[in-house]
Amino acid sequence: MKNTQLIAVFPGTFDPITNGHLDILERALHISHRLILAVAKNPKKGPLFTLEERLDMVKLVVKDIANVEVQPFDGLTVDFARQVGATILIRGLRAISDFEYEFQMALANRKLAPEVDTVFLMPSQKYSYLNSTLVREIATSGGDVSCFVPALVVERLKKKFGH
Amino acid sequence: MKNTQLIAVFPGTFDPITNGHLDILERALHISHRLILAVAKNPKKGPLFTLEERLDMVKLVVKDIANVEVQPFDGLTVDFARQVGATILIRGLRAISDFEYEFQMALANRKLAPEVDTVFLMPSQKYSYLNSTLVREIATSGGDVSCFVPALVVERLKKKFGH
Amino acid sequence: MKNTQLIAVFPGTFDPITNGHLDILERALHISHRLILAVAKNPKKGPLFTLEERLDMVKLVVKDIANVEVQPFDGLTVDFARQVGATILIRGLRAISDFEYEFQMALANRKLAPEVDTVFLMPSQKYSYLNSTLVREIATSGGDVSCFVPALVVERLKKKFGH
Amino acid sequence: MKNTQLIAVFPGTFDPITNGHLDILERALHISHRLILAVAKNPKKGPLFTLEERLDMVKLVVKDIANVEVQPFDGLTVDFARQVGATILIRGLRAISDFEYEFQMALANRKLAPEVDTVFLMPSQKYSYLNSTLVREIATSGGDVSCFVPALVVERLKKKFGH
Amino acid sequence: MKNTQLIAVFPGTFDPITNGHLDILERALHISHRLILAVAKNPKKGPLFTLEERLDMVKLVVKDIANVEVQPFDGLTVDFARQVGATILIRGLRAISDFEYEFQMALANRKLAPEVDTVFLMPSQKYSYLNSTLVREIATSGGDVSCFVPALVVERLKKKFGH
Amino acid sequence: MKNTQLIAVFPGTFDPITNGHLDILERALHISHRLILAVAKNPKKGPLFTLEERLDMVKLVVKDIANVEVQPFDGLTVDFARQVGATILIRGLRAISDFEYEFQMALANRKLAPEVDTVFLMPSQKYSYLNSTLVREIATSGGDVSCFVPALVVERLKKKFGH
Repeated sequence: MKNTQLIAVFPGTFDPITNGHLDILERALHISHRLILAVAKNPKKGPLFTLEERLDMVKLVVKDIANVEVQPFDGLTVDFARQVGATILIRGLRAISDFEYEFQMALANRKLAPEVDTVFLMPSQKYSYLNSTLVREIATSGGDVSCFVPALVVERLKKKFGH
Repeated sequence: MKNTQLIAVFPGTFDPITNGHLDILERALHISHRLILAVAKNPKKGPLFTLEERLDMVKLVVKDIANVEVQPFDGLTVDFARQVGATILIRGLRAISDFEYEFQMALANRKLAPEVDTVFLMPSQKYSYLNSTLVREIATSGGDVSCFVPALVVERLKKKFGH
Repeated sequence: MKNTQLIAVFPGTFDPITNGHLDILERALHISHRLILAVAKNPKKGPLFTLEERLDMVKLVVKDIANVEVQPFDGLTVDFARQVGATILIRGLRAISDFEYEFQMALANRKLAPEVDTVFLMPSQKYSYLNSTLVREIATSGGDVSCFVPALVVERLKKKFGH
Repeated sequence: MKNTQLIAVFPGTFDPITNGHLDILERALHISHRLILAVAKNPKKGPLFTLEERLDMVKLVVKDIANVEVQPFDGLTVDFARQVGATILIRGLRAISDFEYEFQMALANRKLAPEVDTVFLMPSQKYSYLNSTLVREIATSGGDVSCFVPALVVERLKKKFGH
Repeated sequence: MKNTQLIAVFPGTFDPITNGHLDILERALHISHRLILAVAKNPKKGPLFTLEERLDMVKLVVKDIANVEVQPFDGLTVDFARQVGATILIRGLRAISDFEYEFQMALANRKLAPEVDTVFLMPSQKYSYLNSTLVREIATSGGDVSCFVPALVVERLKKKFGH
Repeated sequence: MKNTQLIAVFPGTFDPITNGHLDILERALHISHRLILAVAKNPKKGPLFTLEERLDMVKLVVKDIANVEVQPFDGLTVDFARQVGATILIRGLRAISDFEYEFQMALANRKLAPEVDTVFLMPSQKYSYLNSTLVREIATSGGDVSCFVPALVVERLKKKFGH
């Protein structure tokens, strides 16, 4: 490790942030001095929560965790990483369906910015099939998502769906 | 990162060490202060090279890379990691066939030693289908493996097969 | 088996019902006393056929099969299962691409309703790559789908596309 | 369901029986009146435990579970199923690596005995990467397998490896 | 080979054509006398480039390659193949995610037109994770795609996004 | 196609030849003028049938098919292909488990002999889970393999196992 300070970026849509994201975040802190949760401004698909709502939820959820910051970003992930001086990107690998997309993105990112490398971490087994899409689907149908997301997010989902 | 010194273990059979292993090693040095290549004494399948031959090749190949050590190990990988004070295990993920075995091992290791976490790195695309088995198969049939392994390993394979 | 009556739910969009669905249905009858085909009211993607059209087709196609009922449903599949007293959900597993989504749903359903379990059945090999999306794609382009769906569905597709 | 009595066979090597097997067994009892654990006499690879040892462990572990029997078998699984009057084979699906082998066997079995169908069940998420091979590997290296197998099997493994 | 002239169709959306497409095209010329790049008029998802723009780019890019023609097509691929007298369809297989969709389409095409067979070719390893979607995503965010597509396509993407 | 004569090699162990091999062979003849079935002398695992027995079965099974030859080979497949003037290798792709191994071999072969390319063909759906290992397993247990292999191979298997 040449850097005295290892800065990592954990990019995502966080629509909404889940317990799986928090699990990866804790593991990522083990290998970095500073960790920036980068919340995508304009995800490909229209998000359920606005950028402001997503940023607000993420900030509240991580506010007591040391060495973590939250920032919005637009454009290429590697461009954002360069701006903040990060040299690693953190990605969670849950299941095989993640694998090929993540590898495609990691290889493309390497071509665009060879000095930034992607590090893959594995969430706890209990979160291995959890993602934000599942949370939104269950919440839309009025199901209980309290074992998948922080309490604050449960509230926001209830408000959003008017249950 | 709580540790002032982050020690990583990169375990394997290294039968023989390939350019893919070296690619992962360089990436692992980016996130650790000290990296220990741990050469398995008794791999499940009978190896082509003896432990001594494998250790010797690995040591010669990495001798000019700073912060890297080579050690043999026996028994559980996590027990070895604990002995040397390592908190991360490095694994290369090349292709989907690696994925499930690696996840199974990482989950088992977490149950056995929660304080040691597994970090997955992705080799350069040109090494994404390279492993030691392929090298041995081609070398056995007299094929040229000089684009897959260091020059020193090419020599040792030639000697081994008497070509 | 504690239940004297084993009730199973086979949920889906059935847009339209295919020979693969019918193949799974026959197999599911082998392990249940009563089988309810549950037709999703509001699938995620806009369906080709309305709920009424889909219900109508399914009812006509299964009308001579004993112990089978057809019902529309909304909301969570497990909530519907509870309402009708079912303890198993039937899912067909055709190919690897089904696997992870099905497992994710099955695990989420277990968390939401532990008393309902998911049972996976495998269709005949000749239907292993058949799904409703493929049928719609071929029918849209004017292709012959008579080997993929019941005759009644062939007619409805022709009417829908005006061929 | 035409049969008044639904008999299921759960075939395996059980070398040794794990908590994952027991999890599947409980789920299988939900859809069958009688469940026969069929222990393969001569698995392809030389087993760690002899047939007698494996039968003995399985019998002790399931002795208090109603409607379960244990029998050794040789030859084709479907021939055994026919002999005992079973119409379903139970298989656990843990991960994608299981998927293709299981499908191949299920399709071959269907060709050999169309009246016997294979039903796939999913173990609890905590057992999704657990198999007997992993247990043997960890036990060989002196690791603690008490979260993977019943207490009785822990003892037998200790005796076997002389730890 | 019964045909004196082997005609192949390489169908796609080409939105836009990439270096990966050109790599497959060169390999396909090795096993066919005449190769027709068939550009889909109405892809499922709204394309970035119009049919005219896509046809224009493809024609310019392949204009110096012998035995290659470019044609638009609508409806079923196999109907187009029949019209032009082709007996093989060319498909590139890059990664596992391609595999099941491609097999599904190939099997459906075989049912619809048994005299047309699908031949799968593998691109150079450096293109194994490259597709048009990735190119569009990077170009949208202002990233450099010059290592993924021909120079002419780089220009057209710049014009399209106004960078 | 520059070659006036396109020669293809279809390499394998053929232990024993199956209906799936014959299906691929027929498809391969559609894109080649001459097809050489190359029977591996020393497969990695000890074969059930000797080289002479395998060659004899293959020759008898294909004796009435025009443009097909049978030859034994040793060493690298690409070296054999060069010796006989072949420029394509034929491989059947049945299922995902084939995919990664086949890609690894194809990429290695390309590095060793860039002028020889691998062409993947898909067998009929009814053979998509069939391989020689399955045939040997069923035959060992006394099962009927007549729907998987030619009649002549059924006889040879019966003789081998003394049923």
